[in-house]
Amino acid sequence: MTSNDTGNDILTRPATKAAVRDADRAHVFHSWSAQGQIEPLPVAGAEGSYFWDYDDNRYLDFSSQLVNTNIGHQHPKVVAAIQEQAGRVCTLAPGFAVDVRAEAARLVAERTPGDLDRVFFTNAGAEAVEHAVRMARVHTGRPKVMSTYRSYHGATAAAINLTGDPRRWASDTGSAGVVRFWGPHLYRSHFHAETEAQECERALAHLEETLAFEGPNTIAAIILETVPGTAGVLVPPPGYLAGVRELCDRHGIVFILDEVMAGFGRTGTWFAADLFQVTPDLMTFAKGVNSGYVPLGGVAISDAIAETFEQRPYPGGLTYSGHPLACASAVATLNVMAQEDIVGNAARIGERVLGPGLRELAERHPSVGEVRGTGVFWALDLVRDRDTREPLVPYQPSGPDNQPMADFAAACKTRGLWPFVNMNRTHVVPPCTITEAEAKEGLAALDEALAAADAHTTAGRAR
Amino acid sequence: MTSNDTGNDILTRPATKAAVRDADRAHVFHSWSAQGQIEPLPVAGAEGSYFWDYDDNRYLDFSSQLVNTNIGHQHPKVVAAIQEQAGRVCTLAPGFAVDVRAEAARLVAERTPGDLDRVFFTNAGAEAVEHAVRMARVHTGRPKVMSTYRSYHGATAAAINLTGDPRRWASDTGSAGVVRFWGPHLYRSHFHAETEAQECERALAHLEETLAFEGPNTIAAIILETVPGTAGVLVPPPGYLAGVRELCDRHGIVFILDEVMAGFGRTGTWFAADLFQVTPDLMTFAKGVNSGYVPLGGVAISDAIAETFEQRPYPGGLTYSGHPLACASAVATLNVMAQEDIVGNAARIGERVLGPGLRELAERHPSVGEVRGTGVFWALDLVRDRDTREPLVPYQPSGPDNQPMADFAAACKTRGLWPFVNMNRTHVVPPCTITEAEAKEGLAALDEALAAADAHTTAGRAR
Ligand SMILES: Cc1ncc(COP(=O)(O)O)c(C=O)c1O
Ligand SMILES: Cc1ncc(COP(=O)(O)O)c(C=O)c1O
Repeated sequence: MTSNDTGNDILTRPATKAAVRDADRAHVFHSWSAQGQIEPLPVAGAEGSYFWDYDDNRYLDFSSQLVNTNIGHQHPKVVAAIQEQAGRVCTLAPGFAVDVRAEAARLVAERTPGDLDRVFFTNAGAEAVEHAVRMARVHTGRPKVMSTYRSYHGATAAAINLTGDPRRWASDTGSAGVVRFWGPHLYRSHFHAETEAQECERALAHLEETLAFEGPNTIAAIILETVPGTAGVLVPPPGYLAGVRELCDRHGIVFILDEVMAGFGRTGTWFAADLFQVTPDLMTFAKGVNSGYVPLGGVAISDAIAETFEQRPYPGGLTYSGHPLACASAVATLNVMAQEDIVGNAARIGERVLGPGLRELAERHPSVGEVRGTGVFWALDLVRDRDTREPLVPYQPSGPDNQPMADFAAACKTRGLWPFVNMNRTHVVPPCTITEAEAKEGLAALDEALAAADAHTTAGRAR
Repeated sequence: MTSNDTGNDILTRPATKAAVRDADRAHVFHSWSAQGQIEPLPVAGAEGSYFWDYDDNRYLDFSSQLVNTNIGHQHPKVVAAIQEQAGRVCTLAPGFAVDVRAEAARLVAERTPGDLDRVFFTNAGAEAVEHAVRMARVHTGRPKVMSTYRSYHGATAAAINLTGDPRRWASDTGSAGVVRFWGPHLYRSHFHAETEAQECERALAHLEETLAFEGPNTIAAIILETVPGTAGVLVPPPGYLAGVRELCDRHGIVFILDEVMAGFGRTGTWFAADLFQVTPDLMTFAKGVNSGYVPLGGVAISDAIAETFEQRPYPGGLTYSGHPLACASAVATLNVMAQEDIVGNAARIGERVLGPGLRELAERHPSVGEVRGTGVFWALDLVRDRDTREPLVPYQPSGPDNQPMADFAAACKTRGLWPFVNMNRTHVVPPCTITEAEAKEGLAALDEALAAADAHTTAGRAR
């Protein structure tokens, strides 16, 4: 059942679609799924903005896998760097000084805003959040952390507890140590606001008052996704993040920005924080730092917090902190991104192609309630009715409730487009390297697929 | 400051020892350390059982980095497999079926005991523990998990809370959901026992009674390291694990064995569980599964628990679950280990060289209180006095208290041996691939270095 197309018997692999499928079903337990209700697509290969299956179907990846392949699949220079480093040294313990580890930290620090000049490396995003929260708690000596209902921070215990998304529910054992609040989101305002300025002002007032009643000096940190991603690409109104920064400063609270999804080019800037000219005390990252070619994440740390751990041990660690192979892939990725102006490409594609193109689709498709985003980080908020803004499917839909979105996703795939779908939204989150032609190809496929969503709107049904 | 010895400008790296050191100190935040009190050794390369610095000092790695390089450094066939897979496809989202992901899961399942036939992949050990605990809680619908005081399970919130080790203290916010108990350890018996059989019986009685008073049907899981590693290579007495298995069965409790350190050859068997012929319901792994060449861990899952998640979604996940490059390195590692009988080598080296050699050292060195272990998994419990068994340094030593162990570690390094040191113990945990000659070279260096420990014993001081 396993083949050997490499002339050796070391890297064995099932050779056919059926064999891959069978071994997967027999042995692989998949994330976030009822194992008996899924039929994972066997994927045979990937390059640039595309991947393909065993039946020669190619998909334009408007999801960047899980919003991580910011430089696309299999960038040849980064692949070569991984191969080179693999031949030198794959793994060394975190206690040593290692050339590529130090260089990766330097390149991250060079790009992060303000004085975020030290880097603690983790394996990915959830662990980055875990360690950032620990740093904040030890630094302040305070117990609680505040996060928003519209957020995703990962699936380890502290990270899932901070998450607003319904994926928290099954693991919520009482939310000890966490206070959740509402962030700004004008289209679905929690604050009955009618303008961006009003939403911003009211969201800040809500946070300020909640903080006052929680007791500001019980709060170690406020953690926000700079642009909440999974929850809907919720670009905050001008002034909001600066307002939170000011509240944190006033009360000695650590401000953590989670840029696991928003960072490293996705917003058309190195970090989403750059859009708002705000510097947090800690910034978490993963995904785009090396496009996920090797698992890697981390926390960028301000001078003041690093100072806390100069003479006092930081009480946290992991076997693969600063993994050499992962760090080498980050070095190559960050250099390639600079040399090829990949961040600039994301900005230009957003401004010239995706932004105008998606807004144009919204004009013609009654299912599109709102288009929002920047760079290669966009969401279409799909609705049954533009006037009521009733979502096309309910919050945390299941089974038949989810049919409209299932129909839409299937329509995309039939047209060779792999969409990111979450509740009543589709996110348009292709690689930062996407070309204008590819972006237009994707928009054309979306145009056709949105008919499937339109059919479930009041307008569509009236026809 | 960064060089380019590859003819390209992508994989930049500091070129000299001083440049590596400076970039490390400026930008890398290290695990478990007071950043201002460390001077990380710049490491230039590694091969097999050795690594070396920039001054041509070679170190025999009796620590296997952090007890992960079970096949040694840079096994050429595994390196080639990583290079090959990097050229095919580095990353694909967890939702797809992927040849090397399915094959890695199959090879793990083939080696795990009993019906642990499904694999949920994570990035490393802490996350494996997090997900195992979540599976147990959802499977049973119960809130609490029991773990031992002599344990290490990782540094994310749930994993550190389950940890007994003092590294938990700074992150212990009240231990909600965790009940800690005492496991067997005859040399430092918590139960005033005098024989292995008595220790086993009393440890089981302690657990049984604690369970009765906690309320057995409030307990979702009992998690044990099969052989507690960091806490001192505490090989459990015959019958202990079978006794815990029986208690779990009686009360419908999920039995989790954490084999992150003990698994994949270290004990001279594929898993430490094989030594005791016990099958847990969930088994966590990382480290040896691919020697840490690419970050990877996971949970092997029994049929009964997999069944719980057939029609009900498993509420957990991570961006890089089943990462293709990591899985390819595991496929190659597991095949190489089988072909080269690396597990057999670990067993033989333990039985013929390390076991006898360490016991021989104990006879001549008054600082050695006990030798314990199996395979390439050994500990020397160092004491001030063999009669009182007073540890050479106190629990969680700091500053001058730790001088005896600091002296010992320095003496090892001077002799070209890189030791694993934890509190009053040195662990002898070389790669499973270590040769007889290398093991003997290490024993000879240990013999000399132990003089530094002897000097701090009552016997040594009396001289
Ligand atoms: C903002 C944010 N934080 C944290 C995470 C968790 O990252 P990981 O899945 O790598 O643990 C994610 C994953 O999507 C994320 O989007
Ligand atoms: C038994 C055990 N479990 C879990 C872990 C945590 O693994 P990681 O450091 O990869 O998160 C370790 C690490 O040493 C371990 O020894």
